[in-house]
Amino acid sequence: MNDTQRTTCIVAVIGGTGYAGAELVRLLERHRGAELAASWSSSFTIDQVDEAKPEVVFLATPNEVSARLAPQLLDRGIKVIDLSGAFRLGEPSLYPAWYGFAHARPELLGEAVYGLPEWCNGELSRARLVANPGCYPTSILLALRPLTYLLDRSQPVICDSKSGVSGAGKKSDLAYSFSELFGNFKAYGVGQHRHEPEIRQGLHLGERSTLVFVPHLIPAVRGIYSTMHVAFTNPVSNEEMEKIYADAYANAPFVRVLPAGQVPELKDVVNTPYAEIGFTLLQGGRRAVVVSVIDNLLKGAASQAVQNFNRMLGYPETEGLL
Amino acid sequence: MNDTQRTTCIVAVIGGTGYAGAELVRLLERHRGAELAASWSSSFTIDQVDEAKPEVVFLATPNEVSARLAPQLLDRGIKVIDLSGAFRLGEPSLYPAWYGFAHARPELLGEAVYGLPEWCNGELSRARLVANPGCYPTSILLALRPLTYLLDRSQPVICDSKSGVSGAGKKSDLAYSFSELFGNFKAYGVGQHRHEPEIRQGLHLGERSTLVFVPHLIPAVRGIYSTMHVAFTNPVSNEEMEKIYADAYANAPFVRVLPAGQVPELKDVVNTPYAEIGFTLLQGGRRAVVVSVIDNLLKGAASQAVQNFNRMLGYPETEGLL
Amino acid sequence: MNDTQRTTCIVAVIGGTGYAGAELVRLLERHRGAELAASWSSSFTIDQVDEAKPEVVFLATPNEVSARLAPQLLDRGIKVIDLSGAFRLGEPSLYPAWYGFAHARPELLGEAVYGLPEWCNGELSRARLVANPGCYPTSILLALRPLTYLLDRSQPVICDSKSGVSGAGKKSDLAYSFSELFGNFKAYGVGQHRHEPEIRQGLHLGERSTLVFVPHLIPAVRGIYSTMHVAFTNPVSNEEMEKIYADAYANAPFVRVLPAGQVPELKDVVNTPYAEIGFTLLQGGRRAVVVSVIDNLLKGAASQAVQNFNRMLGYPETEGLL
Amino acid sequence: MNDTQRTTCIVAVIGGTGYAGAELVRLLERHRGAELAASWSSSFTIDQVDEAKPEVVFLATPNEVSARLAPQLLDRGIKVIDLSGAFRLGEPSLYPAWYGFAHARPELLGEAVYGLPEWCNGELSRARLVANPGCYPTSILLALRPLTYLLDRSQPVICDSKSGVSGAGKKSDLAYSFSELFGNFKAYGVGQHRHEPEIRQGLHLGERSTLVFVPHLIPAVRGIYSTMHVAFTNPVSNEEMEKIYADAYANAPFVRVLPAGQVPELKDVVNTPYAEIGFTLLQGGRRAVVVSVIDNLLKGAASQAVQNFNRMLGYPETEGLL
Repeated sequence: MNDTQRTTCIVAVIGGTGYAGAELVRLLERHRGAELAASWSSSFTIDQVDEAKPEVVFLATPNEVSARLAPQLLDRGIKVIDLSGAFRLGEPSLYPAWYGFAHARPELLGEAVYGLPEWCNGELSRARLVANPGCYPTSILLALRPLTYLLDRSQPVICDSKSGVSGAGKKSDLAYSFSELFGNFKAYGVGQHRHEPEIRQGLHLGERSTLVFVPHLIPAVRGIYSTMHVAFTNPVSNEEMEKIYADAYANAPFVRVLPAGQVPELKDVVNTPYAEIGFTLLQGGRRAVVVSVIDNLLKGAASQAVQNFNRMLGYPETEGLL
Repeated sequence: MNDTQRTTCIVAVIGGTGYAGAELVRLLERHRGAELAASWSSSFTIDQVDEAKPEVVFLATPNEVSARLAPQLLDRGIKVIDLSGAFRLGEPSLYPAWYGFAHARPELLGEAVYGLPEWCNGELSRARLVANPGCYPTSILLALRPLTYLLDRSQPVICDSKSGVSGAGKKSDLAYSFSELFGNFKAYGVGQHRHEPEIRQGLHLGERSTLVFVPHLIPAVRGIYSTMHVAFTNPVSNEEMEKIYADAYANAPFVRVLPAGQVPELKDVVNTPYAEIGFTLLQGGRRAVVVSVIDNLLKGAASQAVQNFNRMLGYPETEGLL
Repeated sequence: MNDTQRTTCIVAVIGGTGYAGAELVRLLERHRGAELAASWSSSFTIDQVDEAKPEVVFLATPNEVSARLAPQLLDRGIKVIDLSGAFRLGEPSLYPAWYGFAHARPELLGEAVYGLPEWCNGELSRARLVANPGCYPTSILLALRPLTYLLDRSQPVICDSKSGVSGAGKKSDLAYSFSELFGNFKAYGVGQHRHEPEIRQGLHLGERSTLVFVPHLIPAVRGIYSTMHVAFTNPVSNEEMEKIYADAYANAPFVRVLPAGQVPELKDVVNTPYAEIGFTLLQGGRRAVVVSVIDNLLKGAASQAVQNFNRMLGYPETEGLL
Repeated sequence: MNDTQRTTCIVAVIGGTGYAGAELVRLLERHRGAELAASWSSSFTIDQVDEAKPEVVFLATPNEVSARLAPQLLDRGIKVIDLSGAFRLGEPSLYPAWYGFAHARPELLGEAVYGLPEWCNGELSRARLVANPGCYPTSILLALRPLTYLLDRSQPVICDSKSGVSGAGKKSDLAYSFSELFGNFKAYGVGQHRHEPEIRQGLHLGERSTLVFVPHLIPAVRGIYSTMHVAFTNPVSNEEMEKIYADAYANAPFVRVLPAGQVPELKDVVNTPYAEIGFTLLQGGRRAVVVSVIDNLLKGAASQAVQNFNRMLGYPETEGLL
């Protein structure tokens, strides 16, 4: 970063005590363009915000808290990067069904920029409100968005995803205790996970397209491993696939695509801000198994929020992240 | 077991030093009808067999070793339960492609009984040679065989399976070292795993049916977790599914089926001889996600071999296993 | 077991839902001499006991619950095997300080047999009340009791013990969550663990002898690994040590002693009822590092309780355990 | 760092493919004062060194390779930071017994600076050859060196240390395979570990002082946890201990000391360059249990090497490490 390009930006974090929030605070402390004025728990008061005068606030708060706080901050002229799901879905009517609450300010869903930075252009630099994508959707959309126009819509898109346990947050819950999960493995929320409409939206899958999303718990703390099964309208070659991905991510500093036939390992990306993608063609190129890996707390949350921050404020995309 | 029903059967194990072999030895030592005459490494000599005079020999040897030893034992009038893949596929031409060797005695492939005991009838009691199923195929076939006549063959059968590391055997290999695998997760052998033709055979999937089988490594020692995605020709209800499974496994002491909508956890079956199956219907019953779990070294290898032994010799199916 | 030797004994378990209690229930279900009449949670009523008429009740309940229930059961003529710490210490005055409650029936502390079966003789067969030893004390006393008369009392006995997480019980507690403990390791309760007076009592260490006991959490579910550092009054040889242990455990079916210089591994005993002991002499035999391993839920709790039951009732010591 | 203070220093790494070497390369790539000219495997040639003209070379090579390479590099005027044990012991006669080779250039043992930076003064800035301490000794010496003048030399110093598996290096060895170590725990090398003379040297323990060092393997990848048992000549108070540590590490950016009675957890320091120390006094201050934790690959190897580099070259001690 050229230190003269831009003056320092005052930022604050609300909800910095969770796993993703703590990573976010750690990254912002290292960021040469951000001055972290405060990291508040959710018991902060709006007076504290008025006093700290942040230009940007990161919300690492539960969905309903974010839905309530973001308008208050925006009304004060403060930009918001929300790590919750409160502003990810464009369609207000999905919120009662999937999130259990109705939006008081549904017009903000239209304004919010869905911050998957590799698929954003100038909108991030103009955004007042960024909805940081969910961890599962980040892993799936980075892998499948380049392929959407190739997909055979009569065949299902099947996403078999596996997450480290930190994705559940800090939990005082027997089901998330060490003795219950060590050496264990299980699916959960089949057909009921709120990341499902987010993935459907991100892939522009219409009502008649079939998406099956099955999340699982890996007995590890960090990382998401998504194994995706797709069919193509016409056969594709390894070279075509490699070119499609290369074009899609030519300027993406945090996406790595493996040569055809290689599959990523979770450890390639744990504790890093990178996503890694691999694919294997089957049936003469009429089907593919696509695999992607991210660190759920970084590319799936905190480092992606910083990427969005960098793009919003005009810092180099990698600032604070390498 | 009524001890007077049957006299003791002398058995031997070849290859009892691997993980599955050690479990097999442990189970046979507890078995009240088996007298374990010997547990030989693969450097045994056939004289030792002649001296020990076993009625049944269990082979926990590599595929090619089993292919070579089984005929020698059968020719001496000894019954064989083979835990390798050497006799699992009925079609001899599949061996060079998937196993890298041609069968010297291909007629034995026709004679061998595929020992998934829940799907065998009297043939086990008459068998001279039993091919004990692979660990992945066991988990998948137990879950999907009851559903085969319901499947929409124009839609893929997708099996996203995950195995504990012991499935790879005792390995002095960096790729299987603790530091490389702890907290890690990865797919491997996409489209190339030799259990694929075995699953295809077990589900009677013709050439035009699509089977996608993706095995993964879980960072745990034991267990297989298979998540299967299937479509049905006609919608089915939870009650129909529950009845199908209840009928299929009414007399199966080692298969447990969960109520609709519940998913098994790996720890339910680790260190036990049980398989557990759960299903969730999607799209009004036109699709299902089926999940099954087994211990790869027990129901996926050693305890299944003992089940087959019990059925061959007329012992109660659970002898030595509870 | 000769089935004609003894009629079946009716037993019940109170508190069978915890980790140790569940193991106990599993073992009793396999036991050919025990008929498990009931497994009650702590909300059972005494009427249920009167109806079930058990001859022996196992208490897998918290310390204070055991202290309250045992007298009620004994007064009904029922024998009690208590897995808690309520009756382990002979000296009543230690209870308020270490356990936080005073004993209503302190005379029972004098009557209770401390059930480390390898160090009991006929007293178990006459016992009405058995105090099953703690998991840490079991691992330490089995290793050090044969050496007590050799110890240099001017030098400290240092016990650096490590336990799997299941030792803490079923916990809905952030500190015991998977994300906090996976890949972690920590000491706890230094100088404050209530197993310390139990170890001191078991080793007959007087006030002037120094015992340092430091428990740690291993990031694994099961097992206790105790590393003990002792000094001897006079130098001993490997052969003398081997003879001392061989004499001490000649008739102990569940204690294995390794040759001099070999150290046990936790996995040698996990999921088994065995204890394994190893030692290495240092400084020409004037000091030793002694290591012992057990499964905390089995030899440290449930299987030891069944050993005590077998000795009390006259069954073979190994019944239900192999 | 003030970028104008010093020009860039050209460095190279030999042996950068091991676990510690890879961490070192990663840190040097982020270091704003180091220009990493090359990272060679051990099959490099000295011509490559002559061409790259590094000012400083880091050796992450086996002991005997370092012993052979360091003189060659020093003779070319290149400074050396050696991560192996080849130059850690001052006394040449210890090498054949503990390391299995004799030193060709024993005078270098007298010249080499033992690079525990918190206990070095100006000698690092003048050093040509720095012996980076071992991982176990780092954890033990940081904890106990401040206490050496308090120790009762008639009582043993007992160091019960536990290391993550990466400390064994990249190993294609069954004993270090995932299936053998997951959920396992074991001591190894009791009385025979080559870090023992290094600890003895670092604590200035004479022949008559007793040091017992027992290393163990934790089933985790990273981190060292040392539990140390010491006795004092005179009783000390918590306040005195806190002051001793505060004075010792007032200017140490990477050492954190906890308040009396608190014990560190391994996860506090994993993936960080910090050491953390805690202590608990026993017996009225006549004994202490001292615990310290580090990341074995960072403070126990790579980040400590960079700390030494920073001190040698005059960079801020924290450059590249925060």
